Amino acid sequence: MRRNPERRQALIDAAIEVLAREGARGLTFRAVDAEAAVPPGTASNYFANRDDLFTQVGGRIYERLLPDEATIARGREGVQDEARYAELMHELVDRVSAFNSGYLALLELRLEATRRPELRAVLTKRIREDIDANIGYHATSGLPGDSTSVVLLYLALNWLIVERLTLPDIFTEQEVHDLVDAAVRRSLASEGVTGG
Amino acid sequence: MRRNPERRQALIDAAIEVLAREGARGLTFRAVDAEAAVPPGTASNYFANRDDLFTQVGGRIYERLLPDEATIARGREGVQDEARYAELMHELVDRVSAFNSGYLALLELRLEATRRPELRAVLTKRIREDIDANIGYHATSGLPGDSTSVVLLYLALNWLIVERLTLPDIFTEQEVHDLVDAAVRRSLASEGVTGG
Repeated sequence: MRRNPERRQALIDAAIEVLAREGARGLTFRAVDAEAAVPPGTASNYFANRDDLFTQVGGRIYERLLPDEATIARGREGVQDEARYAELMHELVDRVSAFNSGYLALLELRLEATRRPELRAVLTKRIREDIDANIGYHATSGLPGDSTSVVLLYLALNWLIVERLTLPDIFTEQEVHDLVDAAVRRSLASEGVTGG
Repeated sequence: MRRNPERRQALIDAAIEVLAREGARGLTFRAVDAEAAVPPGTASNYFANRDDLFTQVGGRIYERLLPDEATIARGREGVQDEARYAELMHELVDRVSAFNSGYLALLELRLEATRRPELRAVLTKRIREDIDANIGYHATSGLPGDSTSVVLLYLALNWLIVERLTLPDIFTEQEVHDLVDAAVRRSLASEGVTGG
């Protein structure tokens, strides 16, 4: 295995683009070499096999989807109310949607996980940790709502991003914006209108 | 184009299985013939090209995902309250999850739609009509909530099904059940706990 970390990262980033564009079946070492504009055979020196490549792509997408430290610091400042919660969720939806290829590649990985038990185990662990980290962040933030709010927002916003990236004409940008607000507002309610 | 409707439907149903199992790239006429156990060349007599096949698969999946008339009639009977809404949503999640290959194939189609403008147009129309039909059903049903409730449930439950089918160990069956209840209860609330 080669050890040049910048080269490895460039290959993984190239693999993300290939995955988003060509689908899981299109993700070959040859396609990665071509996308990264490196000599044929390079990728095969960096990844043990395609399973290894899929797994490393999954980890890297999550890394690139994280907010930067300035964004995190901004989120921690000032009043932690419903308006702030909505602001954070708008920022999240826009950040994830902007990494279009990363999110589409992640959907490809999920589908591929139904065929690759090892990939399924890695993604399950990573996503469960991510949900738990969001619940933990929320618990210490002073934001309104509870852990159920966090998980309901995770569900609704993920599909909103799927919709926006795969069939962008289903909802207008204004509808997407209003749905984020509504998802935040209603996910915070612990009692329904009919009193449960 | 051949016109035997049972044969056409059998080919499309075979295509759904191929799509779910092999991904969009694996959906070839040859693979469909093999899956349907018909002579090589059969599928090419029924579909003008792969675009046509993808489009017809999309329509058929939606057809197969619809509830049967008995289920619809049952849903219309009795008290239309939050408990009934939750019941309908549990039935929906279980029905869609049970057609595992159909839902996975639909995700493959969405990803393929980012590469095929014609497929994107067909799916956009179909799904927008489906959302509007749900909103219309809700409006005349007497169920609590408003059109925003319907769309928020559409978002949250779709991702819950994605999770269940692609990474089934993220949430336990009990958690899935509780999340459906919570999604219904909270989506009905038109004001958040902090008063909006």
